[in-house]
Amino acid sequence: MRKILMAISATILSLSATDAIAASAPLMVRIAEIEIDPNQLAAYKTLLAEEQEASVRLEPGVLMLHSVAIAAQPTQIRLLEVYADRAAYEAHIRSPHFMKYKTSTERMVKSLKLIETMPILLCAKAVTQADVPTAACR
Amino acid sequence: MRKILMAISATILSLSATDAIAASAPLMVRIAEIEIDPNQLAAYKTLLAEEQEASVRLEPGVLMLHSVAIAAQPTQIRLLEVYADRAAYEAHIRSPHFMKYKTSTERMVKSLKLIETMPILLCAKAVTQADVPTAACR
Repeated sequence: MRKILMAISATILSLSATDAIAASAPLMVRIAEIEIDPNQLAAYKTLLAEEQEASVRLEPGVLMLHSVAIAAQPTQIRLLEVYADRAAYEAHIRSPHFMKYKTSTERMVKSLKLIETMPILLCAKAVTQADVPTAACR
Repeated sequence: MRKILMAISATILSLSATDAIAASAPLMVRIAEIEIDPNQLAAYKTLLAEEQEASVRLEPGVLMLHSVAIAAQPTQIRLLEVYADRAAYEAHIRSPHFMKYKTSTERMVKSLKLIETMPILLCAKAVTQADVPTAACR
């Protein structure tokens, strides 16, 4: 089910980019809890992964979209969604790739719960310009 | 409550690193659902954020640790934890910073539920070496 595009990130800390983000509006971070029709689970995952990849690649304000299935209940999908701000989210739900996902998965989704959150800390593996592993946190 | 270390990641896609990861064991991805004593919430968040930052910075196999509080129930904390494999997780829980977190937050945690998951797609904003925004997904 996983996308072929596998990319491991070697992240360079950029002070100028940090400054730009620090000055901007707060992140919008959300959890989605989604239950999928078991007969359409494989098709759903393909459409979801396509939508995630396109959104993060094409939209400046879509910073992360992480999706998982609960191991003991594989039709239960969870997403962690990170947008630069609410405007980025509003733009996202009007994007062609999101609208395609929404329309094509409409009959696959048995329930959808959207949970607004306040980020505490978002940390991912990174490397410095000197190639030293570190953490990029915000 | 947020850490001062704010770093925005400019990610370079590395084919050699991608190949190395593709050949390795599957990721271990987990959700933690934690309820905190409301009187100790601020202290808990500080200890959690310290532990996240140290783990992702110091441990090669701790790839992401993202924590949020549910907006409508701020004592409800959720984590998305991504380890390179199960061995990386086993090393993590024996690390000094994790053991410090575990001991110092023991009386703050009212409940803890650990949920094993199967990743569908993990996608974060990145840039290519030519400085073009893209998605790093796996």
